[in-house]
Formats: sequence, structure tokens, C-alpha cells
Amino acid sequence: MRPRLVLFGDSITELSFASGGWGAALTDRFARQADVVLRGLSGYNTRWALKVLPRAMEGAAGAGAGADPAAVTVFFGANDASLPDQVQAHQHVPLKEYQSNLRAICAYFKERWPSTAVILITPPPIYEPARIRDMYGDDEPSRQPERSNEAAGAYAQACIDVATELNHPVIDIWTKMQEFPDWQTSALSDGLHFTPVGNKILFEEVVKTLETSIGFSQERLPSDLPLFHEIDPKDPMKAFGA
Amino acid sequence: MRPRLVLFGDSITELSFASGGWGAALTDRFARQADVVLRGLSGYNTRWALKVLPRAMEGAAGAGAGADPAAVTVFFGANDASLPDQVQAHQHVPLKEYQSNLRAICAYFKERWPSTAVILITPPPIYEPARIRDMYGDDEPSRQPERSNEAAGAYAQACIDVATELNHPVIDIWTKMQEFPDWQTSALSDGLHFTPVGNKILFEEVVKTLETSIGFSQERLPSDLPLFHEIDPKDPMKAFGA
Repeated sequence: MRPRLVLFGDSITELSFASGGWGAALTDRFARQADVVLRGLSGYNTRWALKVLPRAMEGAAGAGAGADPAAVTVFFGANDASLPDQVQAHQHVPLKEYQSNLRAICAYFKERWPSTAVILITPPPIYEPARIRDMYGDDEPSRQPERSNEAAGAYAQACIDVATELNHPVIDIWTKMQEFPDWQTSALSDGLHFTPVGNKILFEEVVKTLETSIGFSQERLPSDLPLFHEIDPKDPMKAFGA
Repeated sequence: MRPRLVLFGDSITELSFASGGWGAALTDRFARQADVVLRGLSGYNTRWALKVLPRAMEGAAGAGAGADPAAVTVFFGANDASLPDQVQAHQHVPLKEYQSNLRAICAYFKERWPSTAVILITPPPIYEPARIRDMYGDDEPSRQPERSNEAAGAYAQACIDVATELNHPVIDIWTKMQEFPDWQTSALSDGLHFTPVGNKILFEEVVKTLETSIGFSQERLPSDLPLFHEIDPKDPMKAFGA
């Protein structure tokens, strides 16, 4: 039976099958090797995610023994880090609670799927002028954004600290993305969500992390059923045991 | 538990999660409502597909009663219709065998998943000059293509006939695609596989067919877990039963 990857997170996960998305790219990469299961919950923070976790995972794993997913990505924090005194205050979760929620989410997966690798992903960086435009239009550039890059960075570090503490692999997309030229507009479409370039950055980090943490890669995974180039044109049915 | 859509077919299915692909678009459309399972086998014809069918479907359905997928798309014929006297002759399957293989595939699904809608998709149209270029490069335009639009059309009609006989919904993508302006190059990338425009044409046909045949649509399906706009900013936890 094929291994599975489960993608659990907020809108950046829910939108990951839009054109150029990182979830679709993972499905494409492992098309003959693994199943990718989408569990994205737009707008959710870790507090809400924790509340719905068992229901969110219904049908995400296969049946029977050995059916634990190979890995699950846990990608929350962009909403938790919403500023507590701005318009998206109801999405805000205090930093310490964010960490304890992440611990609880990891504990849930460890209990339910003992062999599954839990890969944490930090919140992405924020480009504040684009957030102001997204919230208030073009005419009010002096308004305050509802998210800040500084707050996102603090939550990113908090996520890394939890991953280190629990010995889980972690993708620091907050730092990684800011290494790219013009990341503010090349990688982010509205200062928060990802362009195809941003999606590609995360996709490549996930691929790298799957390989280094659990040896999960296109090269190492067996392919499901004979590949076309393995089928002998002179005797095709040989490949199918006939 | 979420309903599932299983995509079973050849390379046009296997490649359906590449950027702009119809499989990814389905996953995106039903992101909070259904799981999409990819079972694409590049290069396969119905003879080979039938050989591997039980193994190909491992893990495609959920566990337990009521876990049959809502629908499965069966999208073969582009390879069966390869011309028997050209370079891809080993992929060719005679028309009558193509039909009996399709019947056997449908019978398998009916037996294994009695409540699952089996949606047949005809082979797409072929743009022969692009096939010649793909096979022999730019310098041999007088070569014969390995596939012809006429043969694809005959297999499309044969597929429609099987669907009619078995009372299954069918998507005639061979006819549909040729209604689009410049379909030869706007919808097809190499005279056979789909551009993002071609992918969108098929995506919309699948969405329409899911709705008309089994009432499966974004509007009618329940959403998994409270949607962000349903969460009251003044009392978010109310949405989670707290």
C-alpha cells in the first residue's frame, strides 16, 4: 500500500492545490509513489485546529496496521500571530499558548500514528504594506496592518523551539523565504499567501525535509506498478507477469 | 467521512496534478468537502490497466462500510488508439478489445464499489503535426504520426457506446475539446497531452458531470468543519461547540 502524506494547516495549506500550489506539486512529484491528503482549514489558528483535530483527520490515514501516514505537515501560526489589537484580533493566540497547542497537536499525532513523522512548518514572513492594501484598499496606507513580520518571526522562532524540544523536523519558511530576492512580492501575493514562486520555495523545502528526515524521496520510494519505460515494447505483457 | 473521487487513467490522469492540472483543480474545488485520489498510469492502455486494476486501487477507498468512493473517472483510450502500424504499435489495443476491456473495468468497479458512480472519459482529440514533431523532431514533417485524430474519434465513439450500453455517465472530451478555438495548440501541448487550457476544459466537464449524474457539487456537499466566515469574531469558540 502506498505511503501517505497528510497536509494539515491553515489557508496556505487549503490553497495548496490552486494552480502552482505546493500540495499539488507534492502530489505530482510522488504521483506513482504516494498519496497526498489535504486537510487545510482557512483562517484557523492552533486553538481551533486542536479543537477539531480528531474530526479533521477522519479518513486521512489508511485502514489497518501499518497504515499510519509516512508524514504529516503541521503548518499553523500565520493566524495565531495576528496582532491582538488589530482587526483580526479574534484569530490571535498568545505565543505561549501557540507553543502548547503545537505540543498538543504533536502529542496527538504521536499517540494516534506512532510511526508518522511530524514536520512542523513555521509561519511565513509578512509584507505589511500588502496586508494594509488587502485589508483597507489603496487609499489608507497609514493604517496599521493586522499582521506584522516581526510577530510572525517571533512565532516562527517559537515553532522552531517546540520542534527542537520534541525532536521533530522543522521548516523555517519565515527565514527561508526572506532569502529570496523581492520575496515581499515575488513569493507573496497579498503579503501573506503564496505566489507560484512562494509555493515552489515551500515545495522544495518539504521535499528536502522528507528526504533528510525519513529518507522519503522519488529516488528511494518504490513505484506503484510497472513504469512505461520498464515495459518491453516487444513483449509488453511480461511486465504484468503474463 | 469525506467522499472520495478516484482518478484512474493514463498519462493525462497521471499528469493531472502538474501546474494547472485538472486533478489538482478538482482537489482545490472540493478542498473542504472531498478527497481526490490519483491513480494515473502513464502509457497504459486498457489491456494493461485491466491487468493491474486490483493493485492499482489499493488504498484508493476508505475503510469499512459506506467507504466506496463517490465516483471514479475511467480515462483510457489515447494509448489504445495508437496506430497498429506505427512506432507506438505496442500500446495499440483493437477497438473491440478496448470496448470489452472498458466493460470489464466497469464491472470490476460495480462489483467492488457498488455505490460508486463510474464516469467514462473518451480519449482526447489528436493534433497530428505536433505528434510528428514530438516523435521525430522538426525536420521530418512528412513522417506518419503514431496516433491520428480519426482513430481517436473512433475510440471515443466506442467509449460512448459502452457508457450508453452500461448506463454510465460519459465525458466526450474528443468532441468537446474540438469546439474550442485553436484547440490543436491552445488545449494540447504536444498534440496529445493537455495545456492548462485543455486541463480547464476537462475540469469543467468533470465538475458538470459530477453534478448532473450524482448531485456532487460544491453547493450541495457539506463542508468539513466550520468555515472561517461562519466563525463569530465575538465568540469564535461557539463554532467549535465550546
